[in-house]
Amino acid sequence: MSPRIITLLTDFGSEDYFVGAMKGTILTRSPKSVLVDITHTIPPQDVRAAAFTLNGAYPYFPAGSIHLAVVDPGVGSERRPVLVQAAAHLFVGPDNGLFTLILEEITEARIRHLTNTAYFPLHRSSTFHGRDIFAPVAAALAEGVPPENFGPTIRDPVRLEIARGESMADGSIAGMIIHVDHFGNCVTNLACNQLSSFTSTRPFCLEVKEFQIRKLARCYDEGAMQPGEPFLVCGSAGMLEISVWSSSAARELKIKVGEPVLLVRA
Amino acid sequence: MSPRIITLLTDFGSEDYFVGAMKGTILTRSPKSVLVDITHTIPPQDVRAAAFTLNGAYPYFPAGSIHLAVVDPGVGSERRPVLVQAAAHLFVGPDNGLFTLILEEITEARIRHLTNTAYFPLHRSSTFHGRDIFAPVAAALAEGVPPENFGPTIRDPVRLEIARGESMADGSIAGMIIHVDHFGNCVTNLACNQLSSFTSTRPFCLEVKEFQIRKLARCYDEGAMQPGEPFLVCGSAGMLEISVWSSSAARELKIKVGEPVLLVRA
Amino acid sequence: MSPRIITLLTDFGSEDYFVGAMKGTILTRSPKSVLVDITHTIPPQDVRAAAFTLNGAYPYFPAGSIHLAVVDPGVGSERRPVLVQAAAHLFVGPDNGLFTLILEEITEARIRHLTNTAYFPLHRSSTFHGRDIFAPVAAALAEGVPPENFGPTIRDPVRLEIARGESMADGSIAGMIIHVDHFGNCVTNLACNQLSSFTSTRPFCLEVKEFQIRKLARCYDEGAMQPGEPFLVCGSAGMLEISVWSSSAARELKIKVGEPVLLVRA
Repeated sequence: MSPRIITLLTDFGSEDYFVGAMKGTILTRSPKSVLVDITHTIPPQDVRAAAFTLNGAYPYFPAGSIHLAVVDPGVGSERRPVLVQAAAHLFVGPDNGLFTLILEEITEARIRHLTNTAYFPLHRSSTFHGRDIFAPVAAALAEGVPPENFGPTIRDPVRLEIARGESMADGSIAGMIIHVDHFGNCVTNLACNQLSSFTSTRPFCLEVKEFQIRKLARCYDEGAMQPGEPFLVCGSAGMLEISVWSSSAARELKIKVGEPVLLVRA
Repeated sequence: MSPRIITLLTDFGSEDYFVGAMKGTILTRSPKSVLVDITHTIPPQDVRAAAFTLNGAYPYFPAGSIHLAVVDPGVGSERRPVLVQAAAHLFVGPDNGLFTLILEEITEARIRHLTNTAYFPLHRSSTFHGRDIFAPVAAALAEGVPPENFGPTIRDPVRLEIARGESMADGSIAGMIIHVDHFGNCVTNLACNQLSSFTSTRPFCLEVKEFQIRKLARCYDEGAMQPGEPFLVCGSAGMLEISVWSSSAARELKIKVGEPVLLVRA
Repeated sequence: MSPRIITLLTDFGSEDYFVGAMKGTILTRSPKSVLVDITHTIPPQDVRAAAFTLNGAYPYFPAGSIHLAVVDPGVGSERRPVLVQAAAHLFVGPDNGLFTLILEEITEARIRHLTNTAYFPLHRSSTFHGRDIFAPVAAALAEGVPPENFGPTIRDPVRLEIARGESMADGSIAGMIIHVDHFGNCVTNLACNQLSSFTSTRPFCLEVKEFQIRKLARCYDEGAMQPGEPFLVCGSAGMLEISVWSSSAARELKIKVGEPVLLVRA
């Protein structure tokens, strides 16, 4: 068996001992697993942002990868620890909606409640299941323990309401900003292909706050033709994004996550 | 010999070439060693924070791991570079108190002054010993060079005064906040088991600033019963922490490192 | 063939899925390559800072290392994707000046335009070439594909004007601040050996803003003799730096990148 990849996605930040303790726990139990950080700077306890980020990264990893995702405000409470098997990937984390987007896209996913304490350390805290439950389970998976050993299948995982763009009676599509990236690009929940119903004779207009955006650029650099003007671009996650060339659209347009957008006929 | 783990803990930040140069130096000399970041965002030159963070992470790594810890305001001065052998772990870094907590807990630790320049590169700076002294020594250790080759044992390592909770004549325990974590939880220097002398008929009260905290939650989520109210929790490092549910206790209570706390009979 | 090192340097930040998607893409195509982060927090779209940081880190990696450098404001436009072979290292990234310092120092470097789409995925975005072009090429190199397979040699790479200290008619040397590091040290573009023309009978003075700096310390700790006073130190990149002991020179002296400095006879 070749070494298994274990990715890590948390809101632990990078300044504490949390991530180190989790990695040490894994490498003690699975010395040859290959650890890859996705991010540790999900905004604290923002399960929605974690769901979006995990969904953007995991498909690029090889089949058989194990994804450890711990954004876990309910640690130590009744919320269930789970293992999700989906599309040849394995996901380990709390059952709080973190895996919503994966479960939506991969309907034949199997979800297990991690009940078998044989894979947990004897002494475990009630405040740090990343180290004391999820890391040991990920390591055991990497060592070849079959998923069915960890607990029974469940059919009622927690799902977040993650709004999708909604088609209105008048042909417009109502959506919202679901993410602002490192560059200040504002990612909408409108898929790029939702523009396909618009044409040169029936052009689109995206309304956000007081702005009306009519330009779709093929890449960020095309926005250089109109410095300061917002434009749309089809982002790398397949969603429409609002950008401003060489600047932050979020800052220039004062847009935050949750801001409504409306795609209408121009 | 299987690949050796080398962890890295510094205050170098992640935006400069410093960490990359250190990792390259190690991998050039020990290509199969496995590098694991603990953190590079210790507050600049804060040896006390580094000591706390290292102590929270290293025990989770397998025996034989090498821990490179470089928070080194005295780089290039007379301060000694050292190697600490403790509990089957090896630690490399400056002798400035960084290893205080390890030396307190593991009294049979052995400390060596790194005097053997044969393991250093010919040309070395006086400003970046992380790259020019500590990384090469860690790499040599990973390649199997025995600790005694690096220099003589010393018995007078620098130790920080890291205050422990102090029992007072009236039965109260005086302590302080020693760390604020990424979530704003305020970690005290009172061990969780110091609550054992309190009982339901003799309940405790933790006084901090104008606040009196009487609730001990089993996990953060239990604090949801009283939103906005501070509560205690036994943190994952075994110390009492002050938390506020779904918020930052440090921000809500305006607490910083160094703030005194007093554990009294309620 | 032993595993190849692939370093990563970007301005993607660490909070998005970007870095994870890039690493997954590499590990899917080259499972045994060893990934090493140099940094992902280059200031957004700051090609100059990226050039400086890459140049400070890469020489410490072993021969044969592959360096993936993606600070790419022109992604999707006409700017060329390139592969640079220099001093037994391989560099992959956009042709926008990122490799200027390497090309200046290693004049026999060979540069190739990445035109062979056989190494790119079928579907690729026009906004994320880090994932869709540069990562696949780096992975193919790690798997042993020879450089000549990727495209033809070019001789007109984009070069940034990265100012070097300039000798003036009166014997003074005019330069500037090119980088402020994590500790607030202000790195100049004056090489340490440019001080060699000054002697004890012909001492130097570095003028920056209203300050006149006459002290050259061997290490940062020597500055402790005059707390609050700025001093020069020869930094680990071989350039003169302005420091203030136990503080940030950038903050104390209100210095930013681009600030002019003048080295004169005292």
